[in-house]
Amino acid sequence: MLTLRSSPASPFGRKVKIAAYLLGLMDRIEVVNADTTDPNDSLRRQNPLGKIPTLVLEDGTTLYDSRVILEYFDHLAGGGRILPNGAERFTVLARQALADGIMDAALLQVYEGRYRPAEKHEEKWLALQAGKVERGLAALEAAPPALGERINVGHIAVACALGYLDLRFAGRWRADHPKLVAWLDTFAARVPAFEKTKATP
Amino acid sequence: MLTLRSSPASPFGRKVKIAAYLLGLMDRIEVVNADTTDPNDSLRRQNPLGKIPTLVLEDGTTLYDSRVILEYFDHLAGGGRILPNGAERFTVLARQALADGIMDAALLQVYEGRYRPAEKHEEKWLALQAGKVERGLAALEAAPPALGERINVGHIAVACALGYLDLRFAGRWRADHPKLVAWLDTFAARVPAFEKTKATP
Repeated sequence: MLTLRSSPASPFGRKVKIAAYLLGLMDRIEVVNADTTDPNDSLRRQNPLGKIPTLVLEDGTTLYDSRVILEYFDHLAGGGRILPNGAERFTVLARQALADGIMDAALLQVYEGRYRPAEKHEEKWLALQAGKVERGLAALEAAPPALGERINVGHIAVACALGYLDLRFAGRWRADHPKLVAWLDTFAARVPAFEKTKATP
Repeated sequence: MLTLRSSPASPFGRKVKIAAYLLGLMDRIEVVNADTTDPNDSLRRQNPLGKIPTLVLEDGTTLYDSRVILEYFDHLAGGGRILPNGAERFTVLARQALADGIMDAALLQVYEGRYRPAEKHEEKWLALQAGKVERGLAALEAAPPALGERINVGHIAVACALGYLDLRFAGRWRADHPKLVAWLDTFAARVPAFEKTKATP
């Protein structure tokens, strides 16, 4: 068995779970929730960064972060399944990087509330992160990634970014991004694991 | 020509520059410095996240982040040069993720000073990030990545993480990590691009 350290609300953990379902690997994986704020959680020994998702292999080796785990799953499933090898590979990887960046910027806004009292919140910092999310969404709305024959890591990451904005920012992105709303509906219909991995607020 | 948007002090930009030198691609690349804090810098149109490094291809396509660009360079150079395809691939990718995570945690500490007045600094947050750096260094000191026949993305990322700690944290890591100090000396002797890409404080 592989052990996946994650948490129900982690958007990066959700990427890994969706990939595992898509590739038929979920029955080889035991999900063990991790508390990233607990210094005594074994997570910090498994991954010095104390970050989720982290995958523990049978031999004790650990792999992280989500991108590395997704590529490893693709490899376990024979290769070229969710990570294309041809000309589109770098477009797909850059789209994943964009979606990961949206999640990072969204998480930094959430952490502002989680790690700081209100008087230490900094508008300039929050606006910088919000701008990244806003421009990222605008770019995706202008050209939602085509859902072709195969679902890839770019699609998965974009869906998880939007799902995280639903979870933590009350889905406010939906009003101004009708094409992305339709895109996410299509993705969810194609990939049942998306609903299955949805966290409750 | 490829255009690389970066800045002299960016540790992630340094990864890309070192890879380009190593793979003999530097004469195909024009480096154009970017100001990530300037809303009018074209960077935010090239990469909605407003992050460096960002690579602009001849056809106007943009690739980011550093990991994607390093893999693209490896592909341009024929493949399997700085990113192994065999069994060690995932170990190398996870090591790059560890080093990238150390840089992220170091950058968040630097940003605390750059984006917030002193009264809004938060010790709990800074300690969280410092812990990631400390545990990451401890893991690397326990087993510095062997510098085998080929320099890979894991080596490059670790060197850039240590170089960034030299630049922004007065090299304080050196006192407690003698094996890593020796490792970095060996790396720098093997890879002249490391010194060539060194930023001045």
